[in-house]
Amino acid sequence: MNQQMEIICVGNELLIGKTLNTNANWLAKRATAFGIMVKRITVVGDDVDEIADAVRETLKRRTKFIVTTGGLGPTFDDKTLKGIAKALNRKLKVNEKALKMVREKYEAYFREGKMERVKLTPPRVKMGTLPEGAEPLPNPVGTAPGVIIDMKETVLIALPGVPPEMKAIFEDSVALLLKNQSGDPVFFETSIYSRGIIESTLAPLIDQVMHDNPDVYIKSHPKGWGKDIEMHFSTAAKDSKTAKNRLGKAIVQLSELVQENGGKIKPQKKKQ
Amino acid sequence: MNQQMEIICVGNELLIGKTLNTNANWLAKRATAFGIMVKRITVVGDDVDEIADAVRETLKRRTKFIVTTGGLGPTFDDKTLKGIAKALNRKLKVNEKALKMVREKYEAYFREGKMERVKLTPPRVKMGTLPEGAEPLPNPVGTAPGVIIDMKETVLIALPGVPPEMKAIFEDSVALLLKNQSGDPVFFETSIYSRGIIESTLAPLIDQVMHDNPDVYIKSHPKGWGKDIEMHFSTAAKDSKTAKNRLGKAIVQLSELVQENGGKIKPQKKKQ
Repeated sequence: MNQQMEIICVGNELLIGKTLNTNANWLAKRATAFGIMVKRITVVGDDVDEIADAVRETLKRRTKFIVTTGGLGPTFDDKTLKGIAKALNRKLKVNEKALKMVREKYEAYFREGKMERVKLTPPRVKMGTLPEGAEPLPNPVGTAPGVIIDMKETVLIALPGVPPEMKAIFEDSVALLLKNQSGDPVFFETSIYSRGIIESTLAPLIDQVMHDNPDVYIKSHPKGWGKDIEMHFSTAAKDSKTAKNRLGKAIVQLSELVQENGGKIKPQKKKQ
Repeated sequence: MNQQMEIICVGNELLIGKTLNTNANWLAKRATAFGIMVKRITVVGDDVDEIADAVRETLKRRTKFIVTTGGLGPTFDDKTLKGIAKALNRKLKVNEKALKMVREKYEAYFREGKMERVKLTPPRVKMGTLPEGAEPLPNPVGTAPGVIIDMKETVLIALPGVPPEMKAIFEDSVALLLKNQSGDPVFFETSIYSRGIIESTLAPLIDQVMHDNPDVYIKSHPKGWGKDIEMHFSTAAKDSKTAKNRLGKAIVQLSELVQENGGKIKPQKKKQ
């Protein structure tokens, strides 16, 4: 069985519609490509209790990986580690390794002439203050380190909300971990497009093809009346040959059924 | 106190990172503009139990409004109403009003020469099958009606996942309801941008301004090292004059503090 992941995104800007949640989308895509199954995405505000609740609920569902984004910075409303500490019943403590990462960042900024020499004021020390038992993950493009807490049954990873920082820490410190723990299967997907057939006619045809191809998941995405309907095929397989054979067989069968029912299959668009 | 809302988005395509969740973003923005506070956004897959769990948890939190998106169409994997029925312990039944809406859609498509006369096959009847006690909401641009279930303490609204259909039903049948129930306050926001000051220096300044302006919420959004930092100000107020005064006062104070600490305030960008 594939390992499962839940994503928790923290930030009022997501709840007022100011910011589009591209972080969840990016993480879901990366995890899926490694054969990890994302079961749920939760968005909560910058509030310690809301964050703690979301983490607790995720732990109850015994998810293998929990990845949070946002709320690791120096300001008062960066509350993710406080929320995680509360959920796990752990104390927040200055982590010497994390504080060293933060200090070295400021020293480098100073050496490079980017800023004056700064003191480790409380907001800066805050970025090196982690729940007990946590390890910092180096941030190659920003100041606040990521955080990993390995609880055996569950691994919790906290990443910043600034997208380039989130992505850099993920690629440097998280990707390999997921890849190693996900088991073999890798995710493969492709789409075909039909014209001249409506979704309610298509529905039982997809049913039949999924019944005959139990390893392939098919979902139709109508784009509006009279427009082409996208039919998205996906499977998790050990290797690309198996995946291609499976997807190919399902695509041929559904294409024939669409044509028998008066529809047309459009040439496949290239995926970017 | 403002009324609260939770959004539940249903769709595997969101969990594999195929689709960016623009629906949640659009709904959050619209609800916030009416003075409704979005407390949480949850994304689950096309699975009856996952949907039912998410709805049950939301009900436990006694949210006034629950809005779901996705999973109302004719295909086997459109499972939202099944999940809602399970969570509410209600039966799914053909709703005559909803079935009439679906039938009239197909008759109109036929009259307009868009398709042959079609029978109300099971996938089509499915779109008129609602949890007991639910009312359909007309879909001006597609076939599947929206759904509203008024449980007094909580109002649950199910909208399709296709964005133009979701938006059209929201504007026609949901917007006024939210506006009437939200009480007076309306949401106002604006941003200013600082240069030459880093976030960890900015943090205590924002703290101070929020302390002196308890009705104003300020959040900084760094865009990366050496880039401008956005400072986003928001408030919920009865009228725009009160809001502008409040935001103006906080902006002046923070701008002065930034300059005293060696930073610059950039001219305000126009919001689109």
